[in-house]
Amino acid sequence: MPLTINEIIAASKRISPYTVRTPLLRMYSLDDYLGCEVYAKAECMQTTGSFKLRGAMNKLLSLSEDELQNGIIAASSGNHGKAIAYASRLLGIRSTIVLPYGAAKVKVDTIRGWGAEIIQCDVAERFALAEKLCRERRAALVPPFNDEAIMAGQGTTGLEIMEQCPDLDAVTVPTSGGGLIGGVSTAIKSLSPQTKVFGAEPASLPRYSASLKAGHPMRVEKKQTIADGLVTLIPGEICYPYVEAHTDGFADVDEEYILKGMKLMITEGKLLCEPSAAITLGAVLQGLLPLKKTDKVCFLISGGSVSLEQLHLLENIML
Amino acid sequence: MPLTINEIIAASKRISPYTVRTPLLRMYSLDDYLGCEVYAKAECMQTTGSFKLRGAMNKLLSLSEDELQNGIIAASSGNHGKAIAYASRLLGIRSTIVLPYGAAKVKVDTIRGWGAEIIQCDVAERFALAEKLCRERRAALVPPFNDEAIMAGQGTTGLEIMEQCPDLDAVTVPTSGGGLIGGVSTAIKSLSPQTKVFGAEPASLPRYSASLKAGHPMRVEKKQTIADGLVTLIPGEICYPYVEAHTDGFADVDEEYILKGMKLMITEGKLLCEPSAAITLGAVLQGLLPLKKTDKVCFLISGGSVSLEQLHLLENIML
Repeated sequence: MPLTINEIIAASKRISPYTVRTPLLRMYSLDDYLGCEVYAKAECMQTTGSFKLRGAMNKLLSLSEDELQNGIIAASSGNHGKAIAYASRLLGIRSTIVLPYGAAKVKVDTIRGWGAEIIQCDVAERFALAEKLCRERRAALVPPFNDEAIMAGQGTTGLEIMEQCPDLDAVTVPTSGGGLIGGVSTAIKSLSPQTKVFGAEPASLPRYSASLKAGHPMRVEKKQTIADGLVTLIPGEICYPYVEAHTDGFADVDEEYILKGMKLMITEGKLLCEPSAAITLGAVLQGLLPLKKTDKVCFLISGGSVSLEQLHLLENIML
Repeated sequence: MPLTINEIIAASKRISPYTVRTPLLRMYSLDDYLGCEVYAKAECMQTTGSFKLRGAMNKLLSLSEDELQNGIIAASSGNHGKAIAYASRLLGIRSTIVLPYGAAKVKVDTIRGWGAEIIQCDVAERFALAEKLCRERRAALVPPFNDEAIMAGQGTTGLEIMEQCPDLDAVTVPTSGGGLIGGVSTAIKSLSPQTKVFGAEPASLPRYSASLKAGHPMRVEKKQTIADGLVTLIPGEICYPYVEAHTDGFADVDEEYILKGMKLMITEGKLLCEPSAAITLGAVLQGLLPLKKTDKVCFLISGGSVSLEQLHLLENIML
């Protein structure tokens, strides 16, 4: 079913008993740093620590009993796996999460604690293994982003943002495969066509910048980034048309600026966020987005899955 | 002028052009840890990083031109000094902050950056030196807590809390000299007599527990605490009667639990706070407050002045 504002509104009703309506915080302390009126949508305060629960919950609630009878399977090393494991526990569905060897112990323990079966494999094999398991067990695969029901769930974040501050000039969104920005931009442009939607992705993995230039999904070379939630190499083919239709520009953010953005949000904004979530602040600090001082700008803080040890990275970063 | 709800309402009108109405955040993720419905009043997001700006601004706006003509003087090593320096800059008042040798460089730089004169001395001498300077310069002394105008300003936090969630069962407040809890408890009991107000102070410096037992302000022995904003040795004599009249109990919190509370708020609540601000969570984790699972409880997160380096302290703390 194509993604429309009605699907997103329906998703919002479906998932609201299980998810948090996260606050939209007016962050006066960041105005001077970012050169605009700063709002933060605190999805780091979402249950399971990220927006991923919205899409996961909407997808599971959209599947039939028949589809769910042999359980569900997801491949993830992070927030998607946590969201699926948690949602499955709430709904009493058997879940299996395929994780790469070397996944952070804290995440593995969390996922196991919510009762999911865990299967580990080489990182490059995890999607193939998840698909193979689905065939063998006749289980349902829950993809991380390339799916309308997932996008509708993530889009509920955009719906809430526009309800919480209807006169925003721009919303900036961390981008990987396109599930979040596809859903959010569809919601925002339906409700407020004049509000700009900007994406931000690591400069090392500019899959949307490259694809929008080419006019179709392009695969980028695999490279490292500190933004470990934004490592997809190619836009989801289902996500891509929505992103192409509903966004106003993309910023390719250098690693140094991702860390500056993270340090700014934590030390001055007082909100704990992960590198992937801070990339939009980095985009502004690097001068990559066309914002005016009087613009009301929402920064979608997508997640807060960060350990205290990881914060050491920020100690020598200069704002 | 005695402190009443009318003084607090007047203070709120007076300071609102200069201060932030901080959000009251519903923190679902902490309910299981703290055994109640958790709300956080995020004064760590207040301008200058703590509630101290409310009292400082109300005091400065209450002084006459005559009183202000020779400038103002405050003794502080932390949030009070930052608040006074910032408020003075906004209002165009000459300010001098007396700081102890060894005050954190970041705080000294911030205060100097706001244009305050800085005078450093031994920690034990700072209040005496501030008073001496006031006499010599005919300047006005701005005390950190023992003053009705300061208390009225801090009390605006309580006013906002009750507007933001009128049916709270309890509000818990970090306590040192009594300026914050004196103002907040006066506001809350005036608006909602059935809402309980609990204080929390370091077990090593139980000045209010001891004083309330004795029936008058008692000085406690000087000891160390990680909660560097809660080191006063004796309740303010002006604060004490309000605290005695309007609070329902005090918790003396062990250092270990202050750190547990801080780790919980940062890693699970996703809000950056300083040790002093987290002491009320520590009180609950230590089992010191009589709360029920269905109670709506506000934790007043008084400040967020903490460096990334200080967070190392939390890495080996078990929740």
